[in-house]
Amino acid sequence: MVGRARTESGTGAGDEELAALLRAAGAAQGPEAVRALIAGVLAAPEPVDPDEWMVLVHPSPGALLADKLRALKASMTARPRDPGPDPAARLAALRARLTAGGFDGFVVPHGDEYQNEFLPARAERLAWLTGFNGSAGLALVLCGSQSARAAVFVDGRYTLQVRDQVDGALYDIRHITDEPATEWLAEAAEAGMRIGYDPWLHPPGGLAGLRKAAEKAGAALAPVEENPLDAVWTDQPPPPISPVRPHDLRFAGRGSAEKRQDIAANLAKRDAGAVVLTSPPSIAWLLNLRGADVPCTPLALAYAILDAAGEIALFMDLRKAAPDLAEHLGSAVQLRSMKDFEAALDALGRDGGRVMVDPAVAPVAVFDRLESAGAEILRAADPCILPKARKTKAELDGTRAAHIRDGAALVGFLAWLEAAAPAGKVTELAAAKHLTGLRAALDMYRGVSFEPISGAGPNGAVVHYRVTEATNRTLAPGDLYLVDSGGQYLDGTTDVTRTVLVRGAGAEADAEARDRFTRVLKGHITLARAVFPAGTTGAQLDVLARGALWRGGVDFDHGTGHGVGSYLGVHEGPQGISKRSHQALDPGMIVSNEPGYYKTGAYGIRIENLVVVATAEPAAGGERPMLGFETITLAPIDRALIEPALMTSEETAWLDAYHARVRETLSPLLDRATAAWLAEATRPLGSG
Amino acid sequence: MVGRARTESGTGAGDEELAALLRAAGAAQGPEAVRALIAGVLAAPEPVDPDEWMVLVHPSPGALLADKLRALKASMTARPRDPGPDPAARLAALRARLTAGGFDGFVVPHGDEYQNEFLPARAERLAWLTGFNGSAGLALVLCGSQSARAAVFVDGRYTLQVRDQVDGALYDIRHITDEPATEWLAEAAEAGMRIGYDPWLHPPGGLAGLRKAAEKAGAALAPVEENPLDAVWTDQPPPPISPVRPHDLRFAGRGSAEKRQDIAANLAKRDAGAVVLTSPPSIAWLLNLRGADVPCTPLALAYAILDAAGEIALFMDLRKAAPDLAEHLGSAVQLRSMKDFEAALDALGRDGGRVMVDPAVAPVAVFDRLESAGAEILRAADPCILPKARKTKAELDGTRAAHIRDGAALVGFLAWLEAAAPAGKVTELAAAKHLTGLRAALDMYRGVSFEPISGAGPNGAVVHYRVTEATNRTLAPGDLYLVDSGGQYLDGTTDVTRTVLVRGAGAEADAEARDRFTRVLKGHITLARAVFPAGTTGAQLDVLARGALWRGGVDFDHGTGHGVGSYLGVHEGPQGISKRSHQALDPGMIVSNEPGYYKTGAYGIRIENLVVVATAEPAAGGERPMLGFETITLAPIDRALIEPALMTSEETAWLDAYHARVRETLSPLLDRATAAWLAEATRPLGSG
Repeated sequence: MVGRARTESGTGAGDEELAALLRAAGAAQGPEAVRALIAGVLAAPEPVDPDEWMVLVHPSPGALLADKLRALKASMTARPRDPGPDPAARLAALRARLTAGGFDGFVVPHGDEYQNEFLPARAERLAWLTGFNGSAGLALVLCGSQSARAAVFVDGRYTLQVRDQVDGALYDIRHITDEPATEWLAEAAEAGMRIGYDPWLHPPGGLAGLRKAAEKAGAALAPVEENPLDAVWTDQPPPPISPVRPHDLRFAGRGSAEKRQDIAANLAKRDAGAVVLTSPPSIAWLLNLRGADVPCTPLALAYAILDAAGEIALFMDLRKAAPDLAEHLGSAVQLRSMKDFEAALDALGRDGGRVMVDPAVAPVAVFDRLESAGAEILRAADPCILPKARKTKAELDGTRAAHIRDGAALVGFLAWLEAAAPAGKVTELAAAKHLTGLRAALDMYRGVSFEPISGAGPNGAVVHYRVTEATNRTLAPGDLYLVDSGGQYLDGTTDVTRTVLVRGAGAEADAEARDRFTRVLKGHITLARAVFPAGTTGAQLDVLARGALWRGGVDFDHGTGHGVGSYLGVHEGPQGISKRSHQALDPGMIVSNEPGYYKTGAYGIRIENLVVVATAEPAAGGERPMLGFETITLAPIDRALIEPALMTSEETAWLDAYHARVRETLSPLLDRATAAWLAEATRPLGSG
Repeated sequence: MVGRARTESGTGAGDEELAALLRAAGAAQGPEAVRALIAGVLAAPEPVDPDEWMVLVHPSPGALLADKLRALKASMTARPRDPGPDPAARLAALRARLTAGGFDGFVVPHGDEYQNEFLPARAERLAWLTGFNGSAGLALVLCGSQSARAAVFVDGRYTLQVRDQVDGALYDIRHITDEPATEWLAEAAEAGMRIGYDPWLHPPGGLAGLRKAAEKAGAALAPVEENPLDAVWTDQPPPPISPVRPHDLRFAGRGSAEKRQDIAANLAKRDAGAVVLTSPPSIAWLLNLRGADVPCTPLALAYAILDAAGEIALFMDLRKAAPDLAEHLGSAVQLRSMKDFEAALDALGRDGGRVMVDPAVAPVAVFDRLESAGAEILRAADPCILPKARKTKAELDGTRAAHIRDGAALVGFLAWLEAAAPAGKVTELAAAKHLTGLRAALDMYRGVSFEPISGAGPNGAVVHYRVTEATNRTLAPGDLYLVDSGGQYLDGTTDVTRTVLVRGAGAEADAEARDRFTRVLKGHITLARAVFPAGTTGAQLDVLARGALWRGGVDFDHGTGHGVGSYLGVHEGPQGISKRSHQALDPGMIVSNEPGYYKTGAYGIRIENLVVVATAEPAAGGERPMLGFETITLAPIDRALIEPALMTSEETAWLDAYHARVRETLSPLLDRATAAWLAEATRPLGSG
């Protein structure tokens, strides 16, 4: 992603022809504006339809203009990228800039102004500076009077990768929990140092520890006016541009006006005059809109301010508004330039009202600005998060439909794999590509919901494995192969993991692998079958997925499940299944059920379905209403890895019923050969 | 309990004879001091040995002096008690006193200076004032310019009882969670009111809500110098007196000096110079001493200050020190009068050190005093709580031994009940008395660990039922009878619940009761069999005890288990099994396993064993060490209430193995008839 997009300036050859075509079409923009627009488009991930950005130039550009626009974008993509200075020079440039600005250090987080999980290219500052491109991390850069020090902090997933990517002569490399950044800073900072941070890139809580550590050393943290790294990153991509469009009411199930009234009532109840929303998924949900600014999640980068009357101002790059957006939003929504956002915060302060802001996600800059403008701040969770997590009937219907199509694609993949693998030529990359190709052919497909995890043998044991050319293994018969993948569809988001025995001559799982797989499956089934009263949290249920593993003296080191959005983030809160998930599981919430087992250097096992929290069938003679889970993911679980003797009769009955449902639901969507394969794969467990 | 003890003054007849005997024995006290001592003894609960207090007069008083002391105590007990003014007059007297002192109201908690679970007679202020004698509650008294208002707040257990005991014309009666005291106060208080509270009776957190509520009404909370209720309670018992004695090292397993060094090291690590201990169980554990100042728990009311060098000052009524206490404590322990405690806090402040105090248990007065003396306060959990909960090998061995004796007594009771009940003449009170009598005959018995819950039929459905003459039911054949009871022994504390079918002609449990009982049992067994990694909390495991009930559409509204002490509190923290128990379960901790089911107006079911957290047997091929529970309570579970078809084979195997262990362990302690009964009661479930 990084560096694929660049700002462009000047006029190129053929601009006069483009200008003429634009004029003829009645487009408002000239060639220079279109080049700047394309630079933004190239800073967003490549969408399923590579031409969809053109609506931002003209609602129906016509063939000639479209060809011209396509060619211009291609020429801008093709231009060879300036590799820029090497890491040592980048670090030196940053230090020089800091010193010039009166700073002695800088905090470089992995995070953007929206606390996105998947970052736009422009926000990959940590990767640009240090070379480390993992999904989480932090760098601290000090200028130091004598020996200038810097450090990169990563978690356990990235301890190997970071050593490949980061120059140990430039940076101390540290484990972020075992050797916290606070300790490094307290030790490395010198008295009197002024260490900068970009107040747009940190929520307040995230800085508290570093601030204390700096103070311990007699140093201080101070916000920068302009990001000094951005100033020295000459080739930094611009903010991403992708069309921001309405999300159809038939998928959302609830109009934006109604949602806004509910949130506004919540504000009024808490004596707040307004809420500042800085989280794009909340804004996407509240206004029923979707974008494509970041990888894997249909978000539009934007901020919003909703007042207690239900009126809302949406702040974003106005060039991103698709032609039908304004009508969709209606008159209660002011569409404003992102440039106006700070002034709007000032106005909130001047009004003297109480303003709700979520300290877990909103940037420090928002708090500082509001406070200095005189606002009273109510620190509270983003009020959209909980209603967003409780899906509407339409969202659930859509998600179920998406899971049926997605399941058919996955079954096609598994059938293909069983046929292709015995030849010993299928690689992890090829398998992942094949699966993504099958999804891409599906109705309403909008891309992957995350980069597939495709791991054979020992690679399957790497929990957050991302296959690269360097790690790419061929699936050998007898291997366990773990594939965790998902798609974004207009009607829903999927996320599914299956672990299969790679078929081939003599391929058979050993007793240990079958024991482990069966224990993972027993945990999966115990959680899937759970019945519980309203108010029960994921922290209470997590143990159900682990009991069989614990009895076997093993465990897995990740949560059992995460919340999932509706054509939104594949990871969403506040619901989840883990010992830290203290949110009650309410009807309509979607969570994953994904226990696993990982044997380092050997194999990994994970079985993941998505489930919806739903009212349970009342028990005969029961007194209290109960909730349970409806499993919505549909794909067979490999019978070759199950040890039937370890299963209870209830567990076997659940599996057989699930397999029957998979077969009955998906067969009509499959070609004859695949349906036959599925019939075989979903036979009752007792049937040999 | 209330009002049984009184202060006495003046000299009575026969004092000259007593004086002579005291002089002859070389006792330090004269008759007047002995009368005051006895007044304190009478303000403590009656111990198993009613003469044990005499060591506080003389280590071996001799027969003549002992007879005289016994007679004097009897005469002081026998004197008819002045019933005192009626509740209206008491309330009026309190209001007059408040007004005279410049206060407009007063907070009357159910709690004492030590946050004891079981209160000494002197601290039953809520009961004296209002008539309500439940184990939890709160009164607020306002003086009011026009209509003086007052209210009593109780929880769901006491909503019926409070209406019998409290005059609704004097007090508003409120449900403490549905109609919180804060709301009542915010509404009832008038602007400018000064509402007093006794700063020795509240930890700081407990007042925060009331303080805010008062402020909302324009009123304020203010500490009183002397408790105005004590001032008008003319017949208030003095502080209790009972001998404070060493707790033998063979039971404690760890010397006090070693414990103090550990806590002192903990203080040093946290830069604290000292810790103020205000919780009697912590002091009892730390100094290996026991007393008998409050009902059901062998505590000595005392405060202590431990410094980072391991030296400790123990503050208490010095008359309570048994003759061998000083030698046991040794030279590193200063035994000081409670009167010196405040001066000692002042001295800590003058030293300017950092002082650890637990805001969950220590009185506001301690914080105020330390702060005004200039101490820096480190608010942190009482550092004795966690090591106290992790029992030593000696404590566990002792507890196991106590459970064997206790189990034999309970088996004797159950056998007696089965023989006696069919005649239809056994009452709840008689049954409880019989059971307590059997325990009282046991070696090392020191009293009940709580008042037995003995409930037949609908009374069994009252979770915290305490049988009284008014509620006393006869156990009818066919009833379910629930008995929850426990004993204190020098070597351990027990707590066990059994629910049995009352035998008799045609007595049979209906299908619903058997279904419920079996689901409770399944939950009990699932928890008992749990295997889990270090770090797992009771909040994570609680669901295991509920799963079978939830699947049946039912639940129970209490935690599944509480921590239990070692010849200390039958309720102790921080360990527990409930959704609020976020303490990791460490090896050596004792918790109860007591799921239940309650059908209001019909019957109650609870099956309770105590379990010890222990290392689990390693699984074949397991990779990680696991923990599990060792069940230590030994008593049969009524097979007549089990529906075998609902049990899994693992559950049946557990029950049969447990019953075999009960039989093998207890039979040698039983007479032949009882052993035969037990053999029948513990037959394998499949054997009809």
